[in-house]
Amino acid sequence: MLKVSWFPELTPQEKIIEEKILDIIKKNYQQVGYTPIETPAVERNQVLTAKGGNEVSKQIFWLYGLAQGCEKDTKDYSLHFDLTVPFARYVIDHKGEINFPFKRSQIQKVWRWERAQKWRFREFYQADIDVIWEEITNLQNNKITNNKLSENSLNNSQISKNLFYDAEIIFTLVKTLKDIFKNLDLNYSFKVRLNNKKIISGFIKDLELEDKITEITTIIDKKDKITAEEFVKLLEKECLKSEQINKIQQFINQDLQSAEKLSTNEEYLAGLEELKQVINFLEQLWISEYEVDFGIVRGLDYYTWTVFETFIDEERSLWSIASGGRYENFTKFIEPKTNFSGVGGSIWVSRLESFIFDKIQLNQKTTSEYLILNFPETTTQCLGLFSKFLKEWKKVEFYPSPDKFKKQLKYADKKWIKYCIILGENELNENCYILKNMETWEQEKIPLK
Amino acid sequence: MLKVSWFPELTPQEKIIEEKILDIIKKNYQQVGYTPIETPAVERNQVLTAKGGNEVSKQIFWLYGLAQGCEKDTKDYSLHFDLTVPFARYVIDHKGEINFPFKRSQIQKVWRWERAQKWRFREFYQADIDVIWEEITNLQNNKITNNKLSENSLNNSQISKNLFYDAEIIFTLVKTLKDIFKNLDLNYSFKVRLNNKKIISGFIKDLELEDKITEITTIIDKKDKITAEEFVKLLEKECLKSEQINKIQQFINQDLQSAEKLSTNEEYLAGLEELKQVINFLEQLWISEYEVDFGIVRGLDYYTWTVFETFIDEERSLWSIASGGRYENFTKFIEPKTNFSGVGGSIWVSRLESFIFDKIQLNQKTTSEYLILNFPETTTQCLGLFSKFLKEWKKVEFYPSPDKFKKQLKYADKKWIKYCIILGENELNENCYILKNMETWEQEKIPLK
Repeated sequence: MLKVSWFPELTPQEKIIEEKILDIIKKNYQQVGYTPIETPAVERNQVLTAKGGNEVSKQIFWLYGLAQGCEKDTKDYSLHFDLTVPFARYVIDHKGEINFPFKRSQIQKVWRWERAQKWRFREFYQADIDVIWEEITNLQNNKITNNKLSENSLNNSQISKNLFYDAEIIFTLVKTLKDIFKNLDLNYSFKVRLNNKKIISGFIKDLELEDKITEITTIIDKKDKITAEEFVKLLEKECLKSEQINKIQQFINQDLQSAEKLSTNEEYLAGLEELKQVINFLEQLWISEYEVDFGIVRGLDYYTWTVFETFIDEERSLWSIASGGRYENFTKFIEPKTNFSGVGGSIWVSRLESFIFDKIQLNQKTTSEYLILNFPETTTQCLGLFSKFLKEWKKVEFYPSPDKFKKQLKYADKKWIKYCIILGENELNENCYILKNMETWEQEKIPLK
Repeated sequence: MLKVSWFPELTPQEKIIEEKILDIIKKNYQQVGYTPIETPAVERNQVLTAKGGNEVSKQIFWLYGLAQGCEKDTKDYSLHFDLTVPFARYVIDHKGEINFPFKRSQIQKVWRWERAQKWRFREFYQADIDVIWEEITNLQNNKITNNKLSENSLNNSQISKNLFYDAEIIFTLVKTLKDIFKNLDLNYSFKVRLNNKKIISGFIKDLELEDKITEITTIIDKKDKITAEEFVKLLEKECLKSEQINKIQQFINQDLQSAEKLSTNEEYLAGLEELKQVINFLEQLWISEYEVDFGIVRGLDYYTWTVFETFIDEERSLWSIASGGRYENFTKFIEPKTNFSGVGGSIWVSRLESFIFDKIQLNQKTTSEYLILNFPETTTQCLGLFSKFLKEWKKVEFYPSPDKFKKQLKYADKKWIKYCIILGENELNENCYILKNMETWEQEKIPLK
């Protein structure tokens, strides 16, 4: 293999399915007004590492410049490792032209230096949607009356408090995933596991474990990958009392009804209230593919409100296929003077694909549905039929040379082309052509014109 | 601007048009059986520089590895600078699984370290189609009876001599370009300027200028960008006699009818014969958007037979928007033991786009066509309508918070959303909603359900 390792390359059969999936995602995202944008593959290191610093530096592919030597103007650039950071940069660069709230979709490849392991690639597709708005409350408090700002930004006090977009993001992802499974005739169900980070944060504060919040949430994040005993042991290692551990277990396993009684912490109750609002919107949008899971925390620390991850019911071991949440001040780490918040989600296309490729038959080696066979005596008529089929938007190819009949059929067979069209001298005399079904071997005479 | 310079970034308005263009290209390519493939952005330097060596090295973006230091396993990789070299590598890597002739399309971004100038970007889209077959004649002569080979490859002696695919590539590109202009309501015509490199090569040999063939073709390649006097001067610099220069000028400006009389060189006449065959197929495919141009040589030296470039009639100064040709043994420079030939073409998407963005109105800031306004008393009904519209695949968004009526309309206006939907208490009592056309300001009452 001359290909670079861990940069995946699909077969034509797989790529045809991937194109289908990407088209469905685009169509569904854009239908709800998530306007497409695309950012360059390359960003400045100062942007990429503004948040995450050293950890990110280990993951990014750095452009050295030209092979002949280090060029000053390129060595500080890298390939983007996600679409959120480039989008934050995009919002900062174009804030004067954007009308907020800004709903955008972005489907691109990203690159990460991942350790070699299953489901992990160094190049993969992400499919993101986000809504971003400008938090102008602070600016208003400072009595800033920037006309351009108020011109382009709605008064977002309303939007900030309103959780419709949180629900809409989840709704759009659910709708998209359902459409993918339906279009590929796959009968898999999935659930969005939904939480609000204020709930867990308030609860831990209530336990007076505020100084161990990172350690505890990290352990909670692992809960599905370890046994109940391992879970307890990890908490014990952090010197938690058994009473506290019991409460944490109770917290994780409780349902929404009982949750109100567990804590009176203000942040906890605010989070619950927000969670209920999101659920209320989901119900109004006829979405039932969700469940509350107080143990969902998501590793990324920029989420502060709503968080969610999505799992296929039959394959709980598979990683989340769609995730997201709400974040505050997401551009601040790049440009401290900006004040944008938003909510977004992402479909992990490459993971979903790996699952799908395992479940479906991958035969179709070409997009063609018809092959018009080539006979030297009737080339002109065959080409006429080829033009006619193309005008009718049929997917068709013409066999390029007058090879033996069997060889031409074999070409169609090997590529799983469904129909062969035979228009030889005999057919021409009868003023018809033959439509041969390559699966059933059935033939049908069809009149010309 | 935090964005990296010379890596273009489209506005949402432009990106919506680009998506349209890319979709049309995909649809047209795939319709004629050019199956999509995608290769990683990253290739080994040994592959990328196998042909072109130093010249290519100056153009490619080299991956240094991780920002924290040089890693052995990544520093010999670069971003691909075109899609032809990666495709050659793909054919070598996957030749055991591919059924030949292999028709593939590939639409991806490529990266080149270009000097800053108009129409030149460091990141841009290419949209390629190629047909590749294995030249097994040599192998057969050597009496190699590799079953796998004969299993997957047709006897290609027929295909090699047959110029249908040359015509099909041009046909597909013409069809695609026409479809793009039609869909964007642009009334521009264009011509494929067609030649065969054997003609020019045979002609120059006939003039006994074989040792200056590179210099002369380079000058001929420039002919449209310089004056007639400059053209003569450049040829004089190469010490050509005025008689020879006259003959070259006569050659470039001749038409197909008179061409047969100009030279009796065998290669020249073979090239003419091939050119006529391609034209014959084009006529049978109802393509008239071409003209013979004996001065088309294309800089790239891997084309040996058919060559073509495409120019918009009204904008002859604009560079070619689609070009291609036939090449022999295109994988040999990477893997000498392989023997694949093919014919292909490419639409220069970024160039075509730059032209198009100049000619059309770029207002549409979102993909949404409907905005459902938000009224606190009727949120449930409005969300019901939102769900209904989505089920009918209308492009619709719901305004997220019950802001003032005017403000909600302004949001639609600014993003050029065509219709607003009003379903307040009054409308609900009348069991209808109002469809407001944001261009004409006209309102229509539509019954609910």
